[in-house]
Amino acid sequence: MINETYESMLNAKNIIRVLSEFATARGEEIGYDNVFDYSLGNPSVPAPQAFTDEMIRLLREEDPMALHGYSPTLGNPAYKEQIAASLNRRFDMHYTAGHIFPTTGAAGAIAHAVRAVTKPGDTVLTFAPYFPEYQPYITGAGLTLRVVPADREHFQINFSELEKLMDEQVAAVLINTPNNPSGVVYSEETLKRLASFLENRSQRFGHRIFLISDEPYREIVFDGREAPYVSKFYDHTLSCYSFSKALSLPGERIGYVAVHPACEKADKIVPMCGQISRGLGHNCPPSIIQIAVSNTCDLTSDLSVYEINRNLLYDKLTELGYTVEKPGGTFYIMPKAMEEDSVAFCEKAKKYDLILVPADGFGAPGFFRMAYCIDTEKVRRSLPALEKFTREEYGK
Amino acid sequence: MINETYESMLNAKNIIRVLSEFATARGEEIGYDNVFDYSLGNPSVPAPQAFTDEMIRLLREEDPMALHGYSPTLGNPAYKEQIAASLNRRFDMHYTAGHIFPTTGAAGAIAHAVRAVTKPGDTVLTFAPYFPEYQPYITGAGLTLRVVPADREHFQINFSELEKLMDEQVAAVLINTPNNPSGVVYSEETLKRLASFLENRSQRFGHRIFLISDEPYREIVFDGREAPYVSKFYDHTLSCYSFSKALSLPGERIGYVAVHPACEKADKIVPMCGQISRGLGHNCPPSIIQIAVSNTCDLTSDLSVYEINRNLLYDKLTELGYTVEKPGGTFYIMPKAMEEDSVAFCEKAKKYDLILVPADGFGAPGFFRMAYCIDTEKVRRSLPALEKFTREEYGK
Repeated sequence: MINETYESMLNAKNIIRVLSEFATARGEEIGYDNVFDYSLGNPSVPAPQAFTDEMIRLLREEDPMALHGYSPTLGNPAYKEQIAASLNRRFDMHYTAGHIFPTTGAAGAIAHAVRAVTKPGDTVLTFAPYFPEYQPYITGAGLTLRVVPADREHFQINFSELEKLMDEQVAAVLINTPNNPSGVVYSEETLKRLASFLENRSQRFGHRIFLISDEPYREIVFDGREAPYVSKFYDHTLSCYSFSKALSLPGERIGYVAVHPACEKADKIVPMCGQISRGLGHNCPPSIIQIAVSNTCDLTSDLSVYEINRNLLYDKLTELGYTVEKPGGTFYIMPKAMEEDSVAFCEKAKKYDLILVPADGFGAPGFFRMAYCIDTEKVRRSLPALEKFTREEYGK
Repeated sequence: MINETYESMLNAKNIIRVLSEFATARGEEIGYDNVFDYSLGNPSVPAPQAFTDEMIRLLREEDPMALHGYSPTLGNPAYKEQIAASLNRRFDMHYTAGHIFPTTGAAGAIAHAVRAVTKPGDTVLTFAPYFPEYQPYITGAGLTLRVVPADREHFQINFSELEKLMDEQVAAVLINTPNNPSGVVYSEETLKRLASFLENRSQRFGHRIFLISDEPYREIVFDGREAPYVSKFYDHTLSCYSFSKALSLPGERIGYVAVHPACEKADKIVPMCGQISRGLGHNCPPSIIQIAVSNTCDLTSDLSVYEINRNLLYDKLTELGYTVEKPGGTFYIMPKAMEEDSVAFCEKAKKYDLILVPADGFGAPGFFRMAYCIDTEKVRRSLPALEKFTREEYGK
């Protein structure tokens, strides 16, 4: 018999996909250019030319056997070394190649990281607002996900709620900064306080609570700032990264887990990831992409468009009277809806060809997400629609 | 705490890896050219030039956003269509794109296929000799693997042993033809008999037993023949394929599951694979590779070297008095060792710089595997060493 659990999952509606399909269908009526589609978090700038050039060079010059051959079980050595060197240079860390496990994007990284530091039946805590795919990632590993309610003012961490939900079942805490969907960057103060809390509870419970840091938006930070590097604050951190966003390579499935060198049993975790891969059918990220990224991992796409878009939207939203935390990075913004029911709010917006995503599925009911990884020209054209919508529906 | 199960797996010795490391170390002493390393099943011929050309063309001409962007959840439509068309043309099947689920190689394919047609706690049957990674693939899905002892004469299926091990717990049967490690291709007769047996037991037990067919060596078949296409014999077959071997792209992680159109709930299985992916952190195989392979999926590398090597080895082995089933395909041969203890046999061979793998780990004690995906010139040079070893150690 086919598996009933997976079969039943087919009935669940994914609100983002439903909205995205609506946007496509509406685009066929009025031209997709006229649909202000803020539903999907796909990078809107191309990979750097240097990446394309490097790929072509490899294909022309390298032995295809080496280029397309199996990676060693624990990943391509050059890739691991270059990642470690890059992180060390940028964040004053002391990774070696042995602390880096190449994965198929951040999803692959999280799949390995959570299995390495938990056992089935354990609990993983995360913080609203959160990426809804954390749910299948965590339950897929035989674990329970508990969501700490949001700090609805600034979307940092709600520590009083965290205290309530933290107990001995918690094996790991999963955070995402810069954050999808809020666009907020966790402050140094937040990370220090989180580290101190995890250290305290690890002592009290007599087992180490690990921190899994999902950071694919690490390089997309605004106002000339940098996102605090999470692993600097807590030794027992597994950093999960993807080049999806910074290099605009989401489809190529290239990322890694970086295990803090001072993490408990740090030297075992990467080899354990190699064992975890066997049960997942993971093996390794694509060989040519590992090799190409190892030579381009310090580059990024031209990310400036996201800051321009953020400014345009933030300014307009505040002008129209929206309550909204200013995003410090990513390509998301998550304002408060003009009515309590954010699903109804987003439904009304569709009449104005504005595709907004209610944040209920992200654990932040009452808010909505706009993914502004779209052309700036389209953002500009969307502003009158946003204004019209807000005035006509809410009298602002 | 870190996961004790995965931690304990670190202590297990992988005999193939140990031998391969020995070969590398020995190579540093006497030159790797002088080590007759038959340990590893890596393709020894390059990917076709047309694949390289297609990759370069895509990188030059295509929009990088489309080329490197996220694939749809259920895979790139062009890839799915081309695979379906190719299978239909070659094997007179009736797949549509909806029956094809792109995966990261055959490992990814099996990971999805087994989860789609079982529930945790079920049993999967496979046949010795078998690929040892089936063990973590199956236990990693929460299932039990039972191994049907080998037909030690021809390495087809031992049906009397199969009858003994088949019971109501069995949800699926996993086969591999052409077979690693024996090189044997299951005959039409074997496949017909297996299909009839599975149909009979499905009726008797009142639940469908699925057939999962792992067929990465499908195109490496000798003597001008073709391997019978497994899905032709049993409707409820999930075909798991990888382009690792036929296109020499093992590191690029590109394959698929093809669900027989007449399979029970055929239309649900691919969407279910999409759900399974979420828990595995799989997402999709690399986008550019999906696109490049969709335009080259009917090609193969120049596979003729494997047949030449098979002939050289088979002739020499039979001349020396080895009992050996002539491989119909793959790049493996699995002769009977000259003593009962094949581990001791392979240990002695190392003195002659012959790296042979005892088949105990493949479920065929008393036999050994030679992976002849190496240069023909090296195969030729190895023959006197094989002769010397056999004469000196076993007086042949």
